[in-house]
Amino acid sequence: MNERIYPTPRLLMGPGPSDVSPRVLAAMSRPLVGHLDPEFLSLMNRIQDQLRKVFQTSNQLTIAVSGTGSAGMEAAVVNFVEPGYRTLVGANGVFGQRLAEEMRRSGAECTVVEAPFGEPLDIEAMRKAAAECRPQVIAVVQAETSTGVLQPIEPIREICDEHDALLLVDAVTSLGGHPVEIDKRRIDICYSGTQKCLSCPPGLAPLTVSEAALERLKSRKTPCQSWYLDLKLVMNYWGENRAYHHTAPISMNFALYESLAIILDEGLEARFTRHRKNHLALVSGIEAMGLKMHVAPLYRLWTLNTVAIPEGIDDLKVRKQLLSEYNLEIGGGLGALAGKVWRVGLMGESSRARNVLFFLYALERCLAAQGYSCAAGSGVAAASAVLEGQ
Amino acid sequence: MNERIYPTPRLLMGPGPSDVSPRVLAAMSRPLVGHLDPEFLSLMNRIQDQLRKVFQTSNQLTIAVSGTGSAGMEAAVVNFVEPGYRTLVGANGVFGQRLAEEMRRSGAECTVVEAPFGEPLDIEAMRKAAAECRPQVIAVVQAETSTGVLQPIEPIREICDEHDALLLVDAVTSLGGHPVEIDKRRIDICYSGTQKCLSCPPGLAPLTVSEAALERLKSRKTPCQSWYLDLKLVMNYWGENRAYHHTAPISMNFALYESLAIILDEGLEARFTRHRKNHLALVSGIEAMGLKMHVAPLYRLWTLNTVAIPEGIDDLKVRKQLLSEYNLEIGGGLGALAGKVWRVGLMGESSRARNVLFFLYALERCLAAQGYSCAAGSGVAAASAVLEGQ
Repeated sequence: MNERIYPTPRLLMGPGPSDVSPRVLAAMSRPLVGHLDPEFLSLMNRIQDQLRKVFQTSNQLTIAVSGTGSAGMEAAVVNFVEPGYRTLVGANGVFGQRLAEEMRRSGAECTVVEAPFGEPLDIEAMRKAAAECRPQVIAVVQAETSTGVLQPIEPIREICDEHDALLLVDAVTSLGGHPVEIDKRRIDICYSGTQKCLSCPPGLAPLTVSEAALERLKSRKTPCQSWYLDLKLVMNYWGENRAYHHTAPISMNFALYESLAIILDEGLEARFTRHRKNHLALVSGIEAMGLKMHVAPLYRLWTLNTVAIPEGIDDLKVRKQLLSEYNLEIGGGLGALAGKVWRVGLMGESSRARNVLFFLYALERCLAAQGYSCAAGSGVAAASAVLEGQ
Repeated sequence: MNERIYPTPRLLMGPGPSDVSPRVLAAMSRPLVGHLDPEFLSLMNRIQDQLRKVFQTSNQLTIAVSGTGSAGMEAAVVNFVEPGYRTLVGANGVFGQRLAEEMRRSGAECTVVEAPFGEPLDIEAMRKAAAECRPQVIAVVQAETSTGVLQPIEPIREICDEHDALLLVDAVTSLGGHPVEIDKRRIDICYSGTQKCLSCPPGLAPLTVSEAALERLKSRKTPCQSWYLDLKLVMNYWGENRAYHHTAPISMNFALYESLAIILDEGLEARFTRHRKNHLALVSGIEAMGLKMHVAPLYRLWTLNTVAIPEGIDDLKVRKQLLSEYNLEIGGGLGALAGKVWRVGLMGESSRARNVLFFLYALERCLAAQGYSCAAGSGVAAASAVLEGQ
């Protein structure tokens, strides 16, 4: 008899996965039906409707790609980029860099405009680069999971319009936490992951495609390099004729349906307000403890908070203590920010007042264990004041 | 309040997914831990050990790809084929054809040897084609889900040896139901899916890679066209240094662990015997009812049974009646066999004596409804005799 799985209950406040509601876990554990069963096909339709609401779009081609958020990124690139395409990527974090890597692997002539990890893109630098490379696709990350930066999308759209370029946006850490507003902002291609602000287990990647991008897809001259992610095939499975392509991850789709139902039950506006409020409370607590946020106030994500690690504090020791003594997971820095910041997620189910307070309480103790001192309870007190004031 | 998901309980006897044990559903619904949590990393190690046992291999690089079986196929091709590579594919079904398509999308010069849907490959035709194209990779499907054919692997290995070619095998519908014997048969690259004989929900693709194939991978001259499936990166996530690549589908891995535990609890030999016995009982019942199997006895899969649809019988009507009146799912024909065969899966949890009997009972009634007559109870009687005789 093999050992059974009873993982230690954790509070998930890292860069994802976030906490998953018991409603979602229960839906995921329902007995399966076939992936071409009329009941499953009906569920796929309902998931598409839900996704359109959460993406804030009427795009017909709105689906859940059968892979994690990274598969969503790959699908977004390989379908809309052909060898020799001119593309422009804004890279102010690990995921922008990964977008550029995906572009190169698709054979694009990819121009990259970099910005420091923790700052938004320099719009004039983007405009200048676009004027030089005349991009057919411009790609940016709305919510950089590696830095905590929220990238304003409107100025990027303006540059796209100057070149008739498609706008490709990574919304992995924003969808369901920040407004993504596909139609209002005229985003052409957008993908996300399920394990962030949707609070569903990882394994699916919501994706939406505008009419303009769909036209570009249909007029491709070369076949998509990926068969698995080829949207021309995948859209026939999600579309009316239900042509068999691959077997959808059935249980994951059960879970996604339920997590989207929770979001729509709460309401998008209420959800955004909750994420913003808990973020502001966290920031207030962090600053009251004498710590610093890594990102300037105007560009801070509500969903992923980067806290600068104070000098003399052992990064790994703090995270290990949080995990082992408090069963609380936060993330370390990634890429250029490794060892410099902690990444504290307040996404979906994890974005709760009780979690903000418990994290500040636990962090104070872990810092004290390494000789860092601040007024006792200053973090939780400051956060409480913000939570009450809303 | 959105509608809740309570799918109608189905008996899954199609080409996959198969029935999933309550043990697996329960494991899948455990609260999540982070994908870099020590408890999850330990689980990944244990899954690798389990997969090695089920694949019957000691290959170090044995993992679960974060996508469905089709993603496993794509990973198996894009990592081991570079543009201009000479490859040979045996295509005697839809999945062999798909392998060839994957090869072409990877830039290979792909030679395809076809065989009728329902027959094994012609070994002399394969040998002759290999002599002409001198392949660096030869790919075949051990268990053709579209035709029900079991392809003997040993003669293909011999041809590989004549050309120092890597042997790539699709074991989607055999792993956990038929012996795959990676090491004994010297298969270099092999993938499967979770929703067939492993009786886990769809969403992961077990993959194993020999030392020889690993060397070939390490000496690639061009980067893998897929970033998501790039094994050079993925193996560092599954390997000792645990470099972040993508977020593994955590709940799906919980499920896979449990489904593999069930297999190892049962024992591989006992499991193969069970699959064989139930297959023989089904065949006996089918033939007693005057129906014909599509595949010759020597090449029949135990896991996926293709039954020729008798003349004058409405394929879709039978399948719809089975589903609506008996909650029993079987599959229709695929590709060249559409409308010509039914595909009856006896995989993993679905390979049970009670399912064989219930299917024959229900099929007799559906056929009778369309005027097909056979001696009452002849199918279940013949199957019973085989089940008792074992």
